[in-house]
Amino acid sequence: MPSPSQNSLKIGIIGFGPFAQFLSSTMIKQGHSITATSRSDYTDLCTHLGISFLRDMNAFLKSSNDVILLCTSILSLSQVIKSVPFHCLKQPTLFVDVLSVKEYPKDLMLQVLPHDSDVLCTHPMFGPESGKDGWKELTFMCDKVRIRNEVTCSSFLQIFAAEGCKMMEMTCEEHDKLAARSQFLTHTVGRVLSEMEIESTPIDTKTFQKLVEVKESTSRDSFDLFSGLFIHNRFAKEQLRNIELALETIKQQLFKRMNEELD
Amino acid sequence: MPSPSQNSLKIGIIGFGPFAQFLSSTMIKQGHSITATSRSDYTDLCTHLGISFLRDMNAFLKSSNDVILLCTSILSLSQVIKSVPFHCLKQPTLFVDVLSVKEYPKDLMLQVLPHDSDVLCTHPMFGPESGKDGWKELTFMCDKVRIRNEVTCSSFLQIFAAEGCKMMEMTCEEHDKLAARSQFLTHTVGRVLSEMEIESTPIDTKTFQKLVEVKESTSRDSFDLFSGLFIHNRFAKEQLRNIELALETIKQQLFKRMNEELD
Ligand SMILES: NC(=O)c1ccc[n+]([C@@H]2O[C@H](COP(=O)([O-])OP(=O)(O)OC[C@H]3O[C@@H](n4cnc5c(N)ncnc54)[C@H](OP(=O)(O)O)[C@@H]3O)[C@@H](O)[C@H]2O)c1
Ligand SMILES: NC(=O)c1ccc[n+]([C@@H]2O[C@H](COP(=O)([O-])OP(=O)(O)OC[C@H]3O[C@@H](n4cnc5c(N)ncnc54)[C@H](OP(=O)(O)O)[C@@H]3O)[C@@H](O)[C@H]2O)c1
Repeated sequence: MPSPSQNSLKIGIIGFGPFAQFLSSTMIKQGHSITATSRSDYTDLCTHLGISFLRDMNAFLKSSNDVILLCTSILSLSQVIKSVPFHCLKQPTLFVDVLSVKEYPKDLMLQVLPHDSDVLCTHPMFGPESGKDGWKELTFMCDKVRIRNEVTCSSFLQIFAAEGCKMMEMTCEEHDKLAARSQFLTHTVGRVLSEMEIESTPIDTKTFQKLVEVKESTSRDSFDLFSGLFIHNRFAKEQLRNIELALETIKQQLFKRMNEELD
Repeated sequence: MPSPSQNSLKIGIIGFGPFAQFLSSTMIKQGHSITATSRSDYTDLCTHLGISFLRDMNAFLKSSNDVILLCTSILSLSQVIKSVPFHCLKQPTLFVDVLSVKEYPKDLMLQVLPHDSDVLCTHPMFGPESGKDGWKELTFMCDKVRIRNEVTCSSFLQIFAAEGCKMMEMTCEEHDKLAARSQFLTHTVGRVLSEMEIESTPIDTKTFQKLVEVKESTSRDSFDLFSGLFIHNRFAKEQLRNIELALETIKQQLFKRMNEELD
């Protein structure tokens, strides 16, 4: 794995959806050069952004990237990664994923990637909306799963550190435990509010306005992302059950109090 | 009903809990004079604030207030109002309530209050937390249910208008419909999150932080207040049912997607 010159990296991106587009604008600003491939054709968008878009996966792998960033949906990662012709890689490469669940891509990458490639699991805890005014103070989680080329790995992490992200190293398992109780819960509440079609009223309280923001922010993400958080985080099912149980408890408390009042 | 001189009102408060204490500090700042009575003894606090506290309800009623403000909990209003010896009132008086539900106190007041008293139903859509840095842009809902003395009523409303509140006139019924879908829903979500004991994590997203704020803000209010929102707003039960149904729908969608993935 050659060390990148002057910290400028050649980054290949697989899956050029909303989140990859968001990340790449900052990477370009920092002077990294990007090649992308995706299921859909992003040639026009990429030309506009100064990114070379290669529909052909063989050509993409041969373009000697220092880092290959996996930005597909959680649900499609397995299918995508298994279809990659890794024998076309010209050099040992750092593979980084940005999926919002972490044990699942870690296990997949360790299974499928060539043994001489490095593996960094990451989760930038922000997106196009929360990160639209810069990444300062926003959290970036990572787990250095299999790193031999420390220089390339540091250069990659520096992309986020340089923007002022709060760098948080933890295991993929720890991440998934915490994220089930925070991010998955947030998306579930947001989807429930969306299903109820809640809207601002002329008599909103400040606290209700926060719920409307939660609804709006979570419904901007794809249903694939939300269901990925559920299906591929083994701690999520328990949290869904916990929401149901807590709602049932609150309901019981309300009816108990109501019956006391009627007595 | 005599008109107050120079807009300075004599205001009597029944129920001197957290919300009455919060309101009265602004009223005093504005130069109104306050007399209070409550189930508990607030003599010391009131002395400190420059408020005369009269434990005896007869003496309280005889203190010739322009306005009597009902600030009891939703659940205790009926018991409190029915025990008031209205024959002790020395003059026709404007009665104002601030309960977070509106049809219920309106009906009670019209039943129980002397016919020569005026009735203004209000709901300041803020509290000690959201209003701690002033009331500017915060919403104040009111329904002029039975107003003959327009001058006293305007002087009272001016307390909130002068602080920059967004004054919102609507019927008690409209209020309750909207509040069931906003404030009651907010409190229910907050109590569910509280029951789940959610806490900030080292990898919070911005949106999860909003949920933590919703939890903290709603659990500051008494359980009496929350159960009052449920028991005495006839639109609340339907909304509780809607939350359950929406959660069930989201759960079904997740399991359906999971089963498709496994196929
Ligand atoms: N959005 C965020 O705020 C955020 C934050 C942190 C992490 N992430 C993670 O970033 C990744 C991308 O998220 P996203 O917001 O862009 O939306 P997403 O819906 O999770 O993923 C969209 C991407 O997945 C690809 N894809 C979907 N189904 C596919 C299939 N069957 N075969 C091949 N490719 C497929 C899409 O390709 P095409 O566009 O070519 O169709 C697109 O590149 C996810 O893993 C997500 O968990 C997102
Ligand atoms: N907190 C807010 O942000 C807010 C905002 C808008 C409107 N409101 C409304 O304002 C009212 C007061 O709210 P709060 O926050 O102060 O808390 P609350 O728990 O709703 O009410 C506390 C008040 O009710 C009295 N009370 C309770 N049970 C009683 C009983 N059995 N007999 C006689 N008095 C009884 C208390 O008297 P003692 O203190 O003497 O025991 C105290 O004055 C409620 O109707 C609420 O809906 C509150």
